[in-house]
Amino acid sequence: MKNSNKGFRQIGIAASGILMMFSAEQAFSQNNNQMVRIAKIIVDPVQLEAYNGFLKEEIEESVRLEPGVLTLYAVSERTKPNHITILEIYADSAAYKSHIQTRQFLKYKNGTKDMVKSLELIESVPLLPSMKIK
Amino acid sequence: MKNSNKGFRQIGIAASGILMMFSAEQAFSQNNNQMVRIAKIIVDPVQLEAYNGFLKEEIEESVRLEPGVLTLYAVSERTKPNHITILEIYADSAAYKSHIQTRQFLKYKNGTKDMVKSLELIESVPLLPSMKIK
Repeated sequence: MKNSNKGFRQIGIAASGILMMFSAEQAFSQNNNQMVRIAKIIVDPVQLEAYNGFLKEEIEESVRLEPGVLTLYAVSERTKPNHITILEIYADSAAYKSHIQTRQFLKYKNGTKDMVKSLELIESVPLLPSMKIK
Repeated sequence: MKNSNKGFRQIGIAASGILMMFSAEQAFSQNNNQMVRIAKIIVDPVQLEAYNGFLKEEIEESVRLEPGVLTLYAVSERTKPNHITILEIYADSAAYKSHIQTRQFLKYKNGTKDMVKSLELIESVPLLPSMKIK
């Protein structure tokens, strides 16, 4: 009986250990695995309207179709509309790797390759990874 | 009787006009009145930890307490952690004007004034104003 109790206690301890590992893993995958990047793009001003059309379509489809694309929030500067900044958040690097092989990403990439004058990709760390947009 | 009918019809037309104005106004205030800005901040590296503490507290309180602060999404560059970018979205310019008079904003502003080496504020236009973070 004593041995059996001890056995149960050990199973109990092992089980809580596994549970702790699971919840740590979950918290990690929800936040700290995120891939966050700032893309800075300068577009040929003459082709800006066409570029924006490609970008809008790519963003709408990616966010709708890919659960791991958490946001692609694109803005243009008010006084320099051909200077674009995109806040890109992916659930993890696998979601990003999958994203750049999708039909919608490749359509954007190939369609805009002669419109983009410069592209800077800045790997970033969020201050508050759970931050949303209301 | 004819005159009275005409009167009702006119009131009806005027009422639908007002309703149309209202719904246009609502759609507008939901999106197009938004004030969207990119803040680029370079922090004194020696004071970065203290700065991040002030910024984190200010963002958490502003987003929690102010309905018109839709997001303050802050990131630092992975290779230059003292280079901070913040995507700021306010419901409208009134929400922004109110924000910069709050206790939490003034605590941040006064607390960090000797930590900030440069601050650039870029008024921006969102490509898709209804974009969120999943």
